[in-house]
Amino acid sequence: MARLKDIAERTGLSVNTVSLALRDSPRIPQDTRDKIRLAAAALDYTPNYSARALVSRQTKTIGLLLTDITSPLLTQVARSVEQELKDLGYVTLLAASNGDPEEELRALATFRARQVDGMLVYPHDHSRLDHLRRLRVAGTPMVLLAGDGEGDVDVICLDEQAGALRATQHLLGAGHRRIGLIDGAYLRGNPAKAEGYEMALRTIGIEPSPELVINPEGDSVGHGHAAFAKLMALSEPPTAVLTANDRLALGGLRWCQENGVAVPRDVAVFGFDNIEYAEYASVPLSSVDYPAVDLARQAVARLITLIRNRDQAPPPELIRIQPELVLRESTGRHP
Amino acid sequence: MARLKDIAERTGLSVNTVSLALRDSPRIPQDTRDKIRLAAAALDYTPNYSARALVSRQTKTIGLLLTDITSPLLTQVARSVEQELKDLGYVTLLAASNGDPEEELRALATFRARQVDGMLVYPHDHSRLDHLRRLRVAGTPMVLLAGDGEGDVDVICLDEQAGALRATQHLLGAGHRRIGLIDGAYLRGNPAKAEGYEMALRTIGIEPSPELVINPEGDSVGHGHAAFAKLMALSEPPTAVLTANDRLALGGLRWCQENGVAVPRDVAVFGFDNIEYAEYASVPLSSVDYPAVDLARQAVARLITLIRNRDQAPPPELIRIQPELVLRESTGRHP
Repeated sequence: MARLKDIAERTGLSVNTVSLALRDSPRIPQDTRDKIRLAAAALDYTPNYSARALVSRQTKTIGLLLTDITSPLLTQVARSVEQELKDLGYVTLLAASNGDPEEELRALATFRARQVDGMLVYPHDHSRLDHLRRLRVAGTPMVLLAGDGEGDVDVICLDEQAGALRATQHLLGAGHRRIGLIDGAYLRGNPAKAEGYEMALRTIGIEPSPELVINPEGDSVGHGHAAFAKLMALSEPPTAVLTANDRLALGGLRWCQENGVAVPRDVAVFGFDNIEYAEYASVPLSSVDYPAVDLARQAVARLITLIRNRDQAPPPELIRIQPELVLRESTGRHP
Repeated sequence: MARLKDIAERTGLSVNTVSLALRDSPRIPQDTRDKIRLAAAALDYTPNYSARALVSRQTKTIGLLLTDITSPLLTQVARSVEQELKDLGYVTLLAASNGDPEEELRALATFRARQVDGMLVYPHDHSRLDHLRRLRVAGTPMVLLAGDGEGDVDVICLDEQAGALRATQHLLGAGHRRIGLIDGAYLRGNPAKAEGYEMALRTIGIEPSPELVINPEGDSVGHGHAAFAKLMALSEPPTAVLTANDRLALGGLRWCQENGVAVPRDVAVFGFDNIEYAEYASVPLSSVDYPAVDLARQAVARLITLIRNRDQAPPPELIRIQPELVLRESTGRHP
């Protein structure tokens, strides 16, 4: 492994000059910097980040905490975050909480121990954010990608309540009055989608019926398949169903197909997230679009601002991105 | 931020004793270690990894390089890798090459610069591995998760050639003689699947027809949809199609549905990877199973062995996991 000394010997300059040049110090003339860079490249020199981190107190590392790495939506966000950060010279430490609050705490402790310069976090429970607020108040640059902000911490998220509200309103507008919801997130502190759904119903005087709300107990296609079976087994099944994500809806479409239930004629289906599979489903799926790329870009930009102004952190911001509905065959040809 | 000194003051012990205890040194009695741990927890002490890394020459960090973060298959591998490594006290640096050899080089350089203890790599081009071999020969613990091994570097991968061979043999066994292949990987140095397909055909005396092999120019559902359209527009379209991954097959199923082509009656479809969507597709999809969890576990175990024996690296191993076929409706009820 080449060291600064080797570059100094090769160029006939001091170790100090070499060190300054490699950090692009304006104290070293540009042509000397270029010469040193070339020598470093020729010697296959790799800077020692551990030593540099001790001096600069920056690790150029960001922690990204997802709830589930296999969610196609979060994966898209992870890709965008990784690309944005790479272009800014940061690397991404990846961790997942897998639906377990203990794992979330462990991942945050790991990020702190590794002295990441900042964190991007999908919290497990959107309403219990005290442990995250404390980190932010203690000076950790941090942006949450979901959650009920309420001061103290930066949140850049999709307005999930508005998404569910508008999707339900669309189904109501198409004449549906018995609308099912497949969503268990409200049981773990994330009621935004259930609230939007109930709000839309109440606005036109329908009291939400508990039997029409099914907890799928998971987010996979298989969970959606089983939840649909339960919902459609009701003595009076719904004529339309909103699901908390597209994977659940895809399982539902398959259940309908297996059981001779026509979509959208017998039951309309509205998904959430607009993942790539939605458009090519057996019945192309209407969905609430989740602007993953845009959201990742905004979150990274905000995090970099917080890192650069660490000593005098700007007041927390709460940005809720308004979702668009993408209408396809699964909800029929209604206006 | 609490420091060792603060723990020393609180416990009335020396900084040196505290330091040894926190590294679990047997030179410190167990009850003293426990006492120091408690004090560290009470003070919310976080070890300085940069300083520790300088001393131990270990960063307890592994670089994971994927070709595409949004592939559901690689995502499953990433989840398993992250979980396995977490349990061993490692964190995972995530990078993606996104189909670009330059990005692969950049990610590897970043991993080196960050002095990861080891790397797990999906190479972009399975046959051009010289840059990876050089790293391994120079002493970097590294396991490739795909690629043509041939000494010098550890590879733990699915036997893709055997997978494509067996899938094609299954279709031949069901009476198909005109079998299409949707796969562009052979154009970027990854011919294993195309080879397996051709081998199966040649074994029973069929010369592969170039018009039946379509490069989808991407791996998404949409790419599969477009590739199917091309294949089925042939004057004599195939009666069965093998795709390089399930996403391509899902797009194909949708194309068939849109165009009144019945699966499997008019055309049988065989996917690859057996992702969660395969089972719940509009026609449940036959697929070559990719044992993501098992493969990740083996690769992590091997990497840890290489890290622990860094000074005297064991000779490279090449493990090709034999794939299983998962037969579903999309290839009919044939034996």
